[in-house]
This record gives sequence, structure tokens and C-alpha cells, in this order.
Amino acid sequence: MAKTYEKMWRELGMDVEKHCKLLSALTVAYSDIYLSQIYRPEGTGYLDFVVSEAHGLRIEELINAKKDGKKIIGSFCLYVPEEIIIALGAIGVGLCGGIDFEPENVHSFTGSRNICPLIQSFMGFKLSGVCPYFEAADLLVGETTCDGKKKIYERLNELQETYVVNLPPNCSSDTGYEYFKKEMGKLIHKLEDLTGNKLTAENLASGIEKVNQKRKTIEKLYSFRKNKKVPISGKDVLLVSQLAFYEDIDRFNEKIGELNEEIESSGKYIPGSESMKRIMITGTPMALPNWKIHHIAESTDEAVVVCEETCTGTRYFENSFSATGDMDKDLNNVFRHYSSINCACFTPNPERIDDIIRLAKEYSADGVIVNNLLFCTDYALENSIVEKRLNEAGIPALRLETDYSVSDTETIKTRIEAFIETL
Amino acid sequence: MAKTYEKMWRELGMDVEKHCKLLSALTVAYSDIYLSQIYRPEGTGYLDFVVSEAHGLRIEELINAKKDGKKIIGSFCLYVPEEIIIALGAIGVGLCGGIDFEPENVHSFTGSRNICPLIQSFMGFKLSGVCPYFEAADLLVGETTCDGKKKIYERLNELQETYVVNLPPNCSSDTGYEYFKKEMGKLIHKLEDLTGNKLTAENLASGIEKVNQKRKTIEKLYSFRKNKKVPISGKDVLLVSQLAFYEDIDRFNEKIGELNEEIESSGKYIPGSESMKRIMITGTPMALPNWKIHHIAESTDEAVVVCEETCTGTRYFENSFSATGDMDKDLNNVFRHYSSINCACFTPNPERIDDIIRLAKEYSADGVIVNNLLFCTDYALENSIVEKRLNEAGIPALRLETDYSVSDTETIKTRIEAFIETL
Repeated sequence: MAKTYEKMWRELGMDVEKHCKLLSALTVAYSDIYLSQIYRPEGTGYLDFVVSEAHGLRIEELINAKKDGKKIIGSFCLYVPEEIIIALGAIGVGLCGGIDFEPENVHSFTGSRNICPLIQSFMGFKLSGVCPYFEAADLLVGETTCDGKKKIYERLNELQETYVVNLPPNCSSDTGYEYFKKEMGKLIHKLEDLTGNKLTAENLASGIEKVNQKRKTIEKLYSFRKNKKVPISGKDVLLVSQLAFYEDIDRFNEKIGELNEEIESSGKYIPGSESMKRIMITGTPMALPNWKIHHIAESTDEAVVVCEETCTGTRYFENSFSATGDMDKDLNNVFRHYSSINCACFTPNPERIDDIIRLAKEYSADGVIVNNLLFCTDYALENSIVEKRLNEAGIPALRLETDYSVSDTETIKTRIEAFIETL
Repeated sequence: MAKTYEKMWRELGMDVEKHCKLLSALTVAYSDIYLSQIYRPEGTGYLDFVVSEAHGLRIEELINAKKDGKKIIGSFCLYVPEEIIIALGAIGVGLCGGIDFEPENVHSFTGSRNICPLIQSFMGFKLSGVCPYFEAADLLVGETTCDGKKKIYERLNELQETYVVNLPPNCSSDTGYEYFKKEMGKLIHKLEDLTGNKLTAENLASGIEKVNQKRKTIEKLYSFRKNKKVPISGKDVLLVSQLAFYEDIDRFNEKIGELNEEIESSGKYIPGSESMKRIMITGTPMALPNWKIHHIAESTDEAVVVCEETCTGTRYFENSFSATGDMDKDLNNVFRHYSSINCACFTPNPERIDDIIRLAKEYSADGVIVNNLLFCTDYALENSIVEKRLNEAGIPALRLETDYSVSDTETIKTRIEAFIETL
């Protein structure tokens, strides 16, 4: 791939040499973690394709779309409604993260070392010029889900235009929801100005339907994990959710739809999965290519991850909704959907804990890994409530805190192995 | 003191033995840090009195007030308007913090170690039962200024009723201000319910006037620090601001007023202060008894702290305002005042940086210590902008990150001494 796209990367202003090293490392990691699995549905070939072309063909597609006048919106979080981006003829993409890249640049830029790995990662990508999604984006849209993101966007904005969606501490209260709607209204105006298009009942309905189909497709894939014989590994499903942030939505819906059909018709499953321990993971989102906990858990060959209550899991697809064609109703449904995502950034957030208990039952989890990214205060503190509630419900829980480095891999491995043995 | 008040502490449900040890340690620290100074105005005897009776006479006063039907409101932050608490016939007090107390209890309660020292401190006080302000309070009022406080209040509420004021990420925007006013309205209803009193034009005006007088009194004290011959140490003024959160407001206004008169009429000053380096400190608030940076800087005998741009400094008293007697106008002035405090929890927050540059000039600072409490992400990231802007303005800056422990005292000392030498 490197040869074919080098010119494109240079034209994007990227550091091609550093980027080459990054891609080589990722190729090796992907091969070790994904291609070595004992069983994968054939349809996962699509995932391999998307990963291999994530910085190549996909970027070429984005650049071609830009030539056709489409705008590229980069974001980091679920709180930037893809329905509206699509409705306005723009393309929403996730930005790079999930791996440490030249963290020393970030430390020197911010003067701080106690930064969450996700922020450290995306700032490292941006500062080093190795993320084509950043460089292809016409606008970055951030949100105030945590102190770290809220404040780093002020610095990121020095490097590339970053619009921030303000979120209240409680979206589901009357005052919080009113505020949220108004902030969403401001975002819509900003995107209308950028794209030169107006939100209409028709384009909104079309955006909602595409995203609805994506959510339903992922939901269907998740449903197969409820079976005793599990047809797809946790890390492959995690990858599906991660790629949903970057991929062309029509191709994604088609190809994951085919994967679902294959799973449904083939009746194949991971050999021995019926006697493996069923693990659910809850906590902070796992940005591509952060596969650490899944890989450690599933490499024991004694466990399979069957559900993720995260923003790269159930929070991404649950509570899907269709278009009505009525602009006010549809907009309100969009706002209601996003304001109901149970992120730990809200207070209080008992709905997330109810979800965890419900999902643990729905997916017949033997145990729950309550995971946190280092320095993520929202989840660190909320997870203390999660752990307590799981204990009260008699569901075994293992609380972890980790980052993107390999320095704690052995410790985490030992703890997960010990946890699985107790189940 | 211990003997006289032991019964009262027991009746409050405190752990008297642990509390005794705490008071002994604080008495020694206070003597070392405050009583050893080469020059203090006589009026600082009042500060010694307030400190010595902070857990004694003052608590007795609060308990007597409770017997008279008054309610005690404990809080941690400027965003809980004292004007309204006073108007409703209640008493607002700060809660304990500023020192590590049995942090292992907090780690075991939260399962997390990366917690800001302030939160770790107040939770340590609460869990160990050694803070009479917690135990005397009828209601705790928190706020969502940072992820840590926002989420820990969910846990604190398990131990003692905690009402949370929700703050938007940007109070000064149109949507943010509307939301802020509504959240303040909810707080007023809560406090009206608790006290059984209604907010009226009269009691609000009276509350505003008392608080206005307090702000003006501290502002006047600060004004003397602008003189070349500095009449009072930075740590004594810091203590004044800290005690303002706990003390009876009438006595405080009277006694600090007398201190101001003494300074104005005596013409006395800290010997040699005219040739000392003038240090300003900006950053996170310093909760009583956190005197670390001031003490280290002033113990060099080559520097005097002349200004604090913190919530225990200029943010506490600037932009004071009088009552108009018109309820709507007065309420709006209260809301405007609080929504204009330039905490790093807001985004963007350029007003704080403008303030720092302005204050450095007003107080003729030779250098600015840009200070942060460990794990405070809001200030850590904003301080990178502060540092940059100070550099651009040609004002020497030293960026520090520390906690309440003594483990880094020598390192901090070396860095501050080296900084002062360069000025």
C-alpha cells in the first residue's frame, strides 16, 4: 500500500516516513492479534480489507468526495450525530487514536503527563502528522464529555479548526435537555454553513435511515453472541464497531449484513466456545487499534468476550430509531437518542448500571471486566458504583485500569487469567 | 481546646481520637509556618484565634445556630452563592480539605488512586469522621466544576445528603447562561425548602450587602500588597481568604476591617520586602491548610507573594457588586457575578489569562508561579496556555504540579529557589 498512496499522504501534508513506520507496526500487530485466530467467519475478510485500506483507499475516497464538494467532519465521540452529517451531504469520520504515538511531543505541547491515553494518542497523531483522517478533515467536531477533551480542544484548535459541542452534566434533566437541544442546534447551523446545505425533512430522514440500518446491522451481529455456541470472537466484533466510525456507511451496512447472513446460515462457531467462560466488558471506549483487553482475555482460549457495554459497543447501536419524515419529530428523536447515551460523563448515571446488569443477563455473562483508561476520572469513579452493584447482583466483576502501552500487559494478563479461573 | 469540646465532637459522631491527632499535627504546622514569621501585623492575632477555634468555638456557634433553627450548608466551591444562603437565614461553611487524611480509606472506597488531592482530602475527612463542618452540615452543596467532583458527589451522597449544582461548560455563552440561571433557580428552591424561608427582595439585598462588604474588605487588604514595601506576607493573606469560607461573616468583616486600618495607619511593613522578588501565584485553589507553595517561596527570605489569581485569591473578591433592592436585578447580578468567575472548568476561558496578565502588572509581579494540583486536568491543560501567554508577554513563569504531601517538597523548593534567582 505504501508505494501507491505515498503521493496522496505527502499532498495531505503528512510525515510519510513516520507514517510508514506506524503502518508497518500496525500490520504486524493486526496479523498477530487477528489473523492468528483459530476460527473466523469468512465475512471477516471484509474487516481485513478495511483495516488494510484504512489509510489508503478510504482516504482516497474521502479526497475524491472532497473534490466533489463534500465536506469531511472528524470527531472522537458518539455525541456528534452522524444522521445530521449525512443529511447535510458530509462524511463523518473518526480520528486516529488507540495507540501511543510519540507521546513526548504531547507532553512537551501540554506540559502535562497525567493525560488520558486517548487524548495523548490523538494529539500525538496530530502533532506528528501521521493521521490522514485529521489531515483530510475540513472540520473537527469535539465535545465536552470530560475535562481532558474539553480543554485539549482549545489547544487542538490552534492546530486545526475544532468546533466544540457543549454538553451539560445531565442531559436527561429538563434544563439539561433544553441546553443540549440548543447546543445541537448551534452545531447544525455550523455544519449548514460549512456544507452550504440546509437540513430538510427529506435529507434528515435519509440520514436517519442510513444510521438506523447501521445500528440494526451491528445489533443483529451482537445478537448471535447471545448463543451458547459463539460464532464470532469478541475482538472481531470490537473491530466491527471500531471500523463503523471510519468506513463508508453503505459498504459497511452491505458487508456486515452479508457477515450476519453467513453467520445465520452457516451454523459455524468458535470451536469449544460453548464451554468457554463468557466475558462482558464495560467501561471506557476502545479506539481503533486498542484491542488489548479483548486479546488478553481471548488468548487464554478459556474465554470469549460476548458483549461490550461501551461507546464502541452497545452504546453505539442500542435505542435505534426510524425516520418519521416529520422534521420536528425526527430532530427530536435524534436529540433524544444522543441525550440518552449513558456515558459516565453524566451525573447521576444509574441508567448505565441498569444497562450493565441487564446486558450481563441478556448475554449470559459469567463475569464482567469493569475497565478504565488510566486518568479517566469519570469512569474511574463511576466504576466504583458499577463494581458495587455487580457484587450486589452476584455477578463476578474484575476492575481494571490500563493504558495503550505494553508495560502492564503481563500484570493485566495475570489478573484476567486469575479472574477467568474463578468463574 | 481538645478537652473543652470533646463532648461536642462526640455528639457530632466524630472520631475524637483521630481528630485529636489531626489537631495536634495542625497546631505544630501552624506554629512552624505562621508564628515563625519575622513580621506580622498585630491584627493577624485574629487569624491565629480563628485557626485555633476553627474546630472548637466556631463549631459551637454553628451548633447553637442550629438550635435556633438555622441550617448549615457545607460546600467546596465559589459556585454556591453565599448571598442566597445568607438571605435564607442559613450559614454557609467550607468543608475540610487541604491535607491528606487516611488516603488509603479513600482509595479503598473509590478503587482509584489517580484522584486530585482536594477530593482525596475531603473524602478522607468524611470517611474518617474528623471534620466537624461535614458533621454539623444539614446539607452539602456540590457543583460539577470538574469530572472528579462531579462523580465523587454521587458517592458522597451515599454518606450524607449532597445536592449538586450543574454547571455548563461555558457559563458566559447565551445557552450556557440560561442553563446556569435555571440550575441556580433549582438550588434556590432546594434551599428554600430546607430553610423554610422564602427569598425576598429584602433578605437578598441584605445577603448581597454582607458578602459585598466581605469582598471589598479582602480587596482592600489585597490593595496594600501593591505597595513596594509589602505590609503583610502572602501566606497571611492566603489564610485570610481561606478563613473567609468558614468564619462568621460579621466578625470576619469587622476584624479584617481592623487589620486593614492597622496596616493603613501604622505604615509598617515586612523588613526588606522592598528589595524582595514579587511573586504572583495562579492556578488551582488552595484549601485550608494548604500553604505549601507560599511557605516555600517566602521561606527563601528573598521573595514575597503579592497576589493569587485563584479561587482562594482574586477570583473570590473581584467584581464585587451592591444590592439594588430590586429582586430581579439583584438576582441577575448574583447570577452574572458567579457565571463570570474564570475557572478553568469553562471552555474557552481567555478571560482568566487576560486577568493574569492584568494582575501581574497591577501587583508589579517579577514572576508568576503557574500552579496545579496533581490530576487536575482542567488547570493542567489551561496552564499550558497561561505559560505560553506569559512567555509572550515577557513575564517570567514557573509551572508547578504538586499535591498535599511532603514527598516533593525538596524538589519544589529547589525549583522555586532557582526561579527566584533568575528574576
